[in-house]
Amino acid sequence: MHINLVLKTLGLVLLFEAAAMVPSLFVGLFFHESNPQPFLISITAAGLVGLGLYLVPIKNKNVGYREGFAIATFGWLLLAIFGAIPFVLSGALPSYVDALFETMSGFTTTGSSVLTNIEILPKSVLFWRSMTHWLGGMGIIVLTLALIPSLNIGGMQMFKAEVPGPTKSKVLPRVAQTSRQLYKVYVIITVTQIILLKLAGLSWFDAAIHSFGTVATGGFSNYNASVGHFQSVSVEIIIIFFMIISGMNFSLHYYAMRGNLAPLWKDRESKLYLGVIVVSIALIIIDLMNNMDYAATKALREASFQVTSIITTTGFATADFEKWPPLSKFILLILMFFGGCAGSTGGGLKAGRILILFKSVSCQLTRLIHPQAVLRVRIGRDVVNHEVVESVYNFFTLYILIFAAGALILTGLGLDLISAASASITALGNVGPGLNLVGPMSNFSGVPDLGKLTLTLLMLIGRLEIYTVLVVFSVRFWR
Amino acid sequence: MHINLVLKTLGLVLLFEAAAMVPSLFVGLFFHESNPQPFLISITAAGLVGLGLYLVPIKNKNVGYREGFAIATFGWLLLAIFGAIPFVLSGALPSYVDALFETMSGFTTTGSSVLTNIEILPKSVLFWRSMTHWLGGMGIIVLTLALIPSLNIGGMQMFKAEVPGPTKSKVLPRVAQTSRQLYKVYVIITVTQIILLKLAGLSWFDAAIHSFGTVATGGFSNYNASVGHFQSVSVEIIIIFFMIISGMNFSLHYYAMRGNLAPLWKDRESKLYLGVIVVSIALIIIDLMNNMDYAATKALREASFQVTSIITTTGFATADFEKWPPLSKFILLILMFFGGCAGSTGGGLKAGRILILFKSVSCQLTRLIHPQAVLRVRIGRDVVNHEVVESVYNFFTLYILIFAAGALILTGLGLDLISAASASITALGNVGPGLNLVGPMSNFSGVPDLGKLTLTLLMLIGRLEIYTVLVVFSVRFWR
Repeated sequence: MHINLVLKTLGLVLLFEAAAMVPSLFVGLFFHESNPQPFLISITAAGLVGLGLYLVPIKNKNVGYREGFAIATFGWLLLAIFGAIPFVLSGALPSYVDALFETMSGFTTTGSSVLTNIEILPKSVLFWRSMTHWLGGMGIIVLTLALIPSLNIGGMQMFKAEVPGPTKSKVLPRVAQTSRQLYKVYVIITVTQIILLKLAGLSWFDAAIHSFGTVATGGFSNYNASVGHFQSVSVEIIIIFFMIISGMNFSLHYYAMRGNLAPLWKDRESKLYLGVIVVSIALIIIDLMNNMDYAATKALREASFQVTSIITTTGFATADFEKWPPLSKFILLILMFFGGCAGSTGGGLKAGRILILFKSVSCQLTRLIHPQAVLRVRIGRDVVNHEVVESVYNFFTLYILIFAAGALILTGLGLDLISAASASITALGNVGPGLNLVGPMSNFSGVPDLGKLTLTLLMLIGRLEIYTVLVVFSVRFWR
Repeated sequence: MHINLVLKTLGLVLLFEAAAMVPSLFVGLFFHESNPQPFLISITAAGLVGLGLYLVPIKNKNVGYREGFAIATFGWLLLAIFGAIPFVLSGALPSYVDALFETMSGFTTTGSSVLTNIEILPKSVLFWRSMTHWLGGMGIIVLTLALIPSLNIGGMQMFKAEVPGPTKSKVLPRVAQTSRQLYKVYVIITVTQIILLKLAGLSWFDAAIHSFGTVATGGFSNYNASVGHFQSVSVEIIIIFFMIISGMNFSLHYYAMRGNLAPLWKDRESKLYLGVIVVSIALIIIDLMNNMDYAATKALREASFQVTSIITTTGFATADFEKWPPLSKFILLILMFFGGCAGSTGGGLKAGRILILFKSVSCQLTRLIHPQAVLRVRIGRDVVNHEVVESVYNFFTLYILIFAAGALILTGLGLDLISAASASITALGNVGPGLNLVGPMSNFSGVPDLGKLTLTLLMLIGRLEIYTVLVVFSVRFWR
């Protein structure tokens, strides 16, 4: 492995992070916060270490498989390690483990928090907290490379390692170009949402915070009651709309913005995703009306928000679904596994993978009835490559095994079954809230430190779609 | 499909069931029970319907894929439908849904019960209840066909449809011969256990009941406190030993009884299975000593029994693990998914499948590091056929999906998350007890009727290893 190349790229990532902290510094100055030190020190630390690494001499500019995996895994770890410093220095989270958890939760767009009172924090810290979402949403390392095309070091490897989804076929052929196009879409969607939320009555600051949380499907709010704080139907409708958009493949939005709606209409994954949203909302409305005596409008409003928030793995809340009946809770738990679409900012297994799983399982049943028939897994008219099918099975199996391992460790630390299982999947799926101890109106402060570190690792594994991290932590990788 | 052939075979199965009820009639007479009517009527009903179906004229003796699937699915359904009659007529379970649940739980060797007070039942009914375990353990339809070799109708198809396990490669080439050999092993093990339990102080009746429950990995006891009733270390050791034996591939026992121990020593699946048992017991001992202040001996005794009971999917209990700390409970929940070995009487995913899953996942990770390498999944020195790997992935995926669907329905009927999830997996894995509402010292009487029927179906799906039942219930099958 070209260690020097890896180190140099990691240096670049840290330099980028240092630059990305500057707006938070200005936010603090703008709101006349007394102490700019936390950000000054953090920017200096990330900047100096980044510069040191960046000056490492390299011979080769080709990033291979191994280098790609190593850059992604260690890059994200470094981002969280340095990104946590402002939380500690500002006193927001005096424990470094807490700060690391919060920062990884931010960058991976999970949105789980250990903060017990969000509203007392300095605005600069809140801004940085939400900024991590926005930077992590579309893949901060690809972003770094896209912004500095002169380097052009093996974008494809990084793209593969960092951008979510089973098939990358929908993206445009050239990576640097593609990622710049996708970032344009990302920026346009974010700015549009900020303006709409401002028009709906939010301050510019609140609008920005909640747009960062939505478009990245992150879920950090600057209010303890999350989006429920606003008590506004129009705000909820705007956020629901943008959550749904952000859970879909961004290349479809790219084409749609250029006037080509065909890819969107034809996309089977989006249909499954939207179908699951509609069915889940309907079932939960029935459950809430039957078992909680909710009025239809209240049930519709709460179900729509919570379902879209969970399936897109955003994690905002307007209701305490911890108090909902078992069926509704279980549906939300299933949606945590489900997740958004490939090529979106959402986490989870992804609708595209579920679609392939269903098709393949159905194929296998047909094979039992007609053993001589030659059957292939098809999505629409396209035959799904056999290797893709196997890799999806593999991914699903690993996902379930890692989820179970995470829950096992958490029960070993004393968490009850539901808290442990829901914490494990909410971290692995980059969702945000879980159930019981870690429910939507609660937080992760009650989890022991070892549990927080386990969840931090699960978030990273989930965000980099399992393989990248597992490969780097395997013995064979280092031989 | 040759409907007539299916009907005729189903008739034979019912005639066999009628004959299998006769011993229970004699048990009632032996213990001077006042009312032989329930069994007289049941034997007559099963016998007459069976005879009627058996007289259906057939042209063809070849059982194809479809006929095999149909005979297995409808055969097991009919067995439960007629086997439930004595429970209703004797007044043990006045509700037919309850009786059907109990009988399907018996035949599928699940061992979940809706009986709130087992000890007051007539001995004839208790004997029949445990007899269903013993008949179901090795596959009652294969048994029927093995006993009547003159018919010889497509034994292989039935064997495939009914006998558990991902690979059938270990069985001897000729099915009729194989199944007779396996039944000999089954009988020898059962008789040995009955004698040992008698020597340990049990009555012949209790010894028979608990041996049927052990060798079939069923779990029905004739005491409310299950095996805990005896408060005897020697009884527990005997049952633990036979549970472990019964969770292993019976063809290994066949060879071992003929003096050939090589297949047993070399078997990787058995090693994984025994390894998981040892590790699980060790973890639970630590958990019980740390969090429940158990003495080491008590922890060892309770952990050993409960772990072997759950992983073999037997379901006997000597302790209320519902009261154990979260880690111990979660380990038992994972063991419910795990199950015994292929070719055993145990349920669950089976150690052999888990082994293939692990090997394949590890292969995939290596492939990411060495994309050019040609890698194959190997168990020991044998290359696992690519189609077997894919079918194992498929099985795992379907297993998880059906488990989730079952739990979803149960939460919809008002069960809490843990009761619903554990009931779903305990039924699908043919284990017996679950957690919370359906814990080891509780029973399934509190589950609504629709829930009982759902669980009855899950038991059947699990016992016939998913495909058989799903195929018969698919639209394509009937075209």
